[in-house]
Amino acid sequence: MTEEVVKDFPTVGVIGGGQLARMMAQAAIGLGVNLRLLSTDPSDSAALVISDVWIGAHDDEQAVLDFIEGVDVVTFDHEHVPPELLAKVIEAGVPVRPGPDALINAQDKIVMRQTLSDAGIPCPRWRAIQPGTDLPTAVDQCRAFGDQVGWPIIMKTSRGGYDGRGVWVADSSVVAREVMEENPLVPPAAWLLEEKVDFTAELAAQIARSPHGQAVTYPVVRTVQQDGICKEVVAPAPGIDEATAIAAQQIALRVAQVVGVTGMLAVELFQTPEGVLVNELAMRPHNSGHWTIDGSVTSQFENHLRAVLDLPLGSSAALAPLCVMVNVLGTEKGDLYAAYRHVMARDPHIKVHMYGKTARPGRKLGHVTALGSDLPSLLERGHHAADYLAGVIDE
Amino acid sequence: MTEEVVKDFPTVGVIGGGQLARMMAQAAIGLGVNLRLLSTDPSDSAALVISDVWIGAHDDEQAVLDFIEGVDVVTFDHEHVPPELLAKVIEAGVPVRPGPDALINAQDKIVMRQTLSDAGIPCPRWRAIQPGTDLPTAVDQCRAFGDQVGWPIIMKTSRGGYDGRGVWVADSSVVAREVMEENPLVPPAAWLLEEKVDFTAELAAQIARSPHGQAVTYPVVRTVQQDGICKEVVAPAPGIDEATAIAAQQIALRVAQVVGVTGMLAVELFQTPEGVLVNELAMRPHNSGHWTIDGSVTSQFENHLRAVLDLPLGSSAALAPLCVMVNVLGTEKGDLYAAYRHVMARDPHIKVHMYGKTARPGRKLGHVTALGSDLPSLLERGHHAADYLAGVIDE
Repeated sequence: MTEEVVKDFPTVGVIGGGQLARMMAQAAIGLGVNLRLLSTDPSDSAALVISDVWIGAHDDEQAVLDFIEGVDVVTFDHEHVPPELLAKVIEAGVPVRPGPDALINAQDKIVMRQTLSDAGIPCPRWRAIQPGTDLPTAVDQCRAFGDQVGWPIIMKTSRGGYDGRGVWVADSSVVAREVMEENPLVPPAAWLLEEKVDFTAELAAQIARSPHGQAVTYPVVRTVQQDGICKEVVAPAPGIDEATAIAAQQIALRVAQVVGVTGMLAVELFQTPEGVLVNELAMRPHNSGHWTIDGSVTSQFENHLRAVLDLPLGSSAALAPLCVMVNVLGTEKGDLYAAYRHVMARDPHIKVHMYGKTARPGRKLGHVTALGSDLPSLLERGHHAADYLAGVIDE
Repeated sequence: MTEEVVKDFPTVGVIGGGQLARMMAQAAIGLGVNLRLLSTDPSDSAALVISDVWIGAHDDEQAVLDFIEGVDVVTFDHEHVPPELLAKVIEAGVPVRPGPDALINAQDKIVMRQTLSDAGIPCPRWRAIQPGTDLPTAVDQCRAFGDQVGWPIIMKTSRGGYDGRGVWVADSSVVAREVMEENPLVPPAAWLLEEKVDFTAELAAQIARSPHGQAVTYPVVRTVQQDGICKEVVAPAPGIDEATAIAAQQIALRVAQVVGVTGMLAVELFQTPEGVLVNELAMRPHNSGHWTIDGSVTSQFENHLRAVLDLPLGSSAALAPLCVMVNVLGTEKGDLYAAYRHVMARDPHIKVHMYGKTARPGRKLGHVTALGSDLPSLLERGHHAADYLAGVIDE
């Protein structure tokens, strides 16, 4: 940990030591801005590579208030900092970007659904079960909702879920009862019911937005999930018409304005024959934008920093006709580095990004990126490299 | 400073805390390899952004030997580590890349001239004055050399010069005497005399070369110096024919082989009507290759790390038809960050890289990069951004 800072250059405080903060660090080095990290463990992905690391929990009030001393703006690796703690940071005179009023829409899925529905932004049909509702009443509400929108339905915890956690599919009220019995929620978390959308593809629209309201849209991408975890991203989304891409970007711009986000916003969308519907929001750099490190003039990480510093935003133009990103999802295989020789020798054009994390099944350990113009070839190369690194394949 | 390392991933020890080590850190984050830095001061450019920093001098034997404990390979931000100390590092079982036998050609310009001349690689005509030669004899040798190759001649100290330091132009033996009187050299440093080449352009050819002999050539670039300091780089070099570009790359490959370099090699060349001549060598990432961060599939910093780790090398393909890099050279203006708003608003496509250094006249504080296809526009944009950041212009 060093106390040195560069004269005149601001210090961005990042709460959370995951790979998003790690990749922000790469961008910060280029911009010359100082990064200070609050991380729970010195072995966290970002803590390994940032010089100014403070160890502490994101919900430890004293740790956070100590951390912000001398910081010019606070931003995040994740959305889990309690809103009331963020209010105290603001009270102490340090801007929080995105602010708690925006962030609540990424922290609480019921708040998000209500905000978007009120603004007329297309969402799947949904229903919230009030916290504290007794089980029989809750089951009745599930049954009524399922009978209305059609079974199966999606059940989500309003808070704390990510990468497929906190999401269940219930094909009957019996299953819905089991889900609620087995997963008791602590208020303010509540159950959110959603119709199961019969989508043709999952898309994501990302924008960067600065405090003074400048916004930059990134090309709309297609995402593919595996067990609820992002596995593959293609930019721009293949097989969608221009009207769909524009609709997705307009939704993202509208969401950003309605929730008042600062920094990167990712809007995950379902593409359906009737149009696009909002699935989830993230208010930070997002897995659907990792391709921008290698594939865009300005990465989502750089634009996130520029946005939270209220600097003019950089171009989101793509550097190649197509870019494919594939996540390296952990398996039982421990020695990731052993795969480098094969992956790099096979494909000198592939870009490897590893996050310094220990392998664990399903864990996001890194990603690979390939730029070009031939989609089948890019997909083959991306998946081969990612799967070889993960240890899924060995040839 | 953290002691955490990621299982199975190697640790590269970098000696020297300048901006080259800083930009290596960006590449190391992506590759997931651990970087340990030996830096003289905690406020050095690279020391500001690397977590595992050891403070010590590059020529302090104990500091270096302590530093290499647990390091898998040693490489450099600069060429100033004494060869005898590198021999001790190797003796201690840690590979040094590039090795001292190669590095001596970047440390001592007379050794370099001798090695290249012996190999038949085209150089300007040159003559070394033996260390310890008395002044009248040395002046006689200057006079004889100048009369032979034509005045003025170039006088260089064989060791320790960089960015225009350690280089003089003498248009007579009287001036040559003054230069030698005013700059007494300590052996093994000696005077190297070179003809002043009437070049049409300065070029640079970069290659990455790995221990097992794989080499990747980067596009040949055109460089423009200002007071002996690199100011502008255009990739690929405009206005040279294919034969010249190939000749330059072949010279770089031949130099790499002759000196046995591992890692990045930059060969600075004079273009003349009679062909290209080698000016200087650098055995590390080099200013002429900073464009590769934004403009190439694999940056020189990533390929340097891949080479010293004996990993397969990455593609050096350019991402745009043309790339212009312009250095931000310091002036009296102190507040660099104040210029960000204007520079970024004026040109959302420009890439800004700042090195965390305090402004000082002539100091390399950062660089900017612009990708595209219209050279005059790229040059205008690059120079405007760099000069505005430096404080040379204010509109």
